[in-house]
Amino acid sequence: MTLANFFVYLEALGVIAFALSGIIEAARKHFDLVGVVMVAAIAAFGGGTLRDVLLDRRPFFWAEQEFWLWALIAVGLVLPFFFKANHIEFTEKAMLIPDAFGLGIFAAGGTHIALQTGATPMVAVVMGVITATVGGVLRDVLVNEVPRAFHDHQPYAVIAFAGGWLVVLLSYLQTPEYLDVLAAAVVMVAVRLLAVKFGWELKRWRFL
Amino acid sequence: MTLANFFVYLEALGVIAFALSGIIEAARKHFDLVGVVMVAAIAAFGGGTLRDVLLDRRPFFWAEQEFWLWALIAVGLVLPFFFKANHIEFTEKAMLIPDAFGLGIFAAGGTHIALQTGATPMVAVVMGVITATVGGVLRDVLVNEVPRAFHDHQPYAVIAFAGGWLVVLLSYLQTPEYLDVLAAAVVMVAVRLLAVKFGWELKRWRFL
Amino acid sequence: MTLANFFVYLEALGVIAFALSGIIEAARKHFDLVGVVMVAAIAAFGGGTLRDVLLDRRPFFWAEQEFWLWALIAVGLVLPFFFKANHIEFTEKAMLIPDAFGLGIFAAGGTHIALQTGATPMVAVVMGVITATVGGVLRDVLVNEVPRAFHDHQPYAVIAFAGGWLVVLLSYLQTPEYLDVLAAAVVMVAVRLLAVKFGWELKRWRFL
Repeated sequence: MTLANFFVYLEALGVIAFALSGIIEAARKHFDLVGVVMVAAIAAFGGGTLRDVLLDRRPFFWAEQEFWLWALIAVGLVLPFFFKANHIEFTEKAMLIPDAFGLGIFAAGGTHIALQTGATPMVAVVMGVITATVGGVLRDVLVNEVPRAFHDHQPYAVIAFAGGWLVVLLSYLQTPEYLDVLAAAVVMVAVRLLAVKFGWELKRWRFL
Repeated sequence: MTLANFFVYLEALGVIAFALSGIIEAARKHFDLVGVVMVAAIAAFGGGTLRDVLLDRRPFFWAEQEFWLWALIAVGLVLPFFFKANHIEFTEKAMLIPDAFGLGIFAAGGTHIALQTGATPMVAVVMGVITATVGGVLRDVLVNEVPRAFHDHQPYAVIAFAGGWLVVLLSYLQTPEYLDVLAAAVVMVAVRLLAVKFGWELKRWRFL
Repeated sequence: MTLANFFVYLEALGVIAFALSGIIEAARKHFDLVGVVMVAAIAAFGGGTLRDVLLDRRPFFWAEQEFWLWALIAVGLVLPFFFKANHIEFTEKAMLIPDAFGLGIFAAGGTHIALQTGATPMVAVVMGVITATVGGVLRDVLVNEVPRAFHDHQPYAVIAFAGGWLVVLLSYLQTPEYLDVLAAAVVMVAVRLLAVKFGWELKRWRFL
């Protein structure tokens, strides 16, 4: 596996994770199959597309590897039937698991890509946060939920932010860069899953 | 009428159709005249602008043909008074008619433009879907409706998707390309109008 | 103070004003501190970023002067505690004051920047409106309010539109361009503050 391949596979994993979160959300809300595929596509590609627009990177990863568009349509059409046939039902929290994987992978990958285009560390970290949160925010808005990244009082964007700095710090070491990205992604996914499991909350602001 | 002219006029027709749908929606919701013009502008220009950003095409069609901005402001200011003077009232479904025209025209035109910039068929079709749906989604969000493209369980985005493939297939024939686009647009508008009229529904997804 | 400096400082003032409006809104809604910083950042940078994407200007002002990202995070984290320690509470209208400053400054600055890139007057004015309104609309959507720019029936976008034309007209005079922008910004801020204070309303549209 070459280095370029590693990042393509990692990005693919993030796409799959966010697509899955979108499929679960849209299926729970009784969207039709077209709606399921659209929500999955926007959750999966939204963040990376905005990152590429902001960094002026063309073609987009989904335009370059058109295969993912086909795969996503196939999966979005088939998966709900698979769930149904196997009597798999989802609780409200089910989508938080793939969502955590998407968060960590896209934050690490987005920061890395921005660093490679010559962005300063702070800008690169912000790009990582954008990559990791925008798809999920659009998904939540489209299924008519208040976006989790802003309102659920659990650490979400802040994990992407801190994890982005981890990528930056690791990039100063002499380790291969795919290890930097992988380590930061693993840490972020783990922290997010723990936060969900144990109900960690950020202090919410009150004027009183 | 030259070929370039044909596509300009077709785009204009789509702009007018979506602007009209925005004017009807905003007027029904008792927006002020400034709000009516803004919703009309966003409905009319939103999809095409995002398509041009994604394809990196500059200047935008509304920046190149500034005339349309003036026309839209004039129409947005005048049309509500015309409706009022003629005691025209709109039912909830009235805006679905111009919306159907915008859908078909923008999906066909957007796919065609993307093909011309060298996009692969699948990417071009997705660009057509984006062109056709984004303006309407923004319009619905801004007037505080759940976006029709995702929730109404009637075929909408799927018509743009299938119609985009019709443009791609026709482009392999030896017919002039404006005929391809025109035929696909007519088919899409007709199918959408029939879907609205007869209440065709997509199977919505249920886990139970 | 050189000319380039003047515009940097003016943009900074607009960023601060919109960030403040975002902080107030998010704190009033009991967002956590991460949410406060994110809403502030999106309110402050949203409009200018979309303007730069549409005009194809890179790097973005917040990527070029990374200092503002740091300042915004610091202010977003510190200010709520300052408010609390001083028992400052905000009424629903408190954020309309910084919002008015952001509106005037960004509309004038955005129109000026667009004119400099060679946009026609009408397109430049529309860019000014986009710069001035998009950050506020995103802020309102994210805190789950209906966007003020569309629904409050008070002059908002129309002030940005008329003020943009003031920039265009003044640019034909032989005055230094920073005076044009400053004068237009002052007029817009004043008109918006008066509109808020005296409850000026635009005629809202009714079919009956």
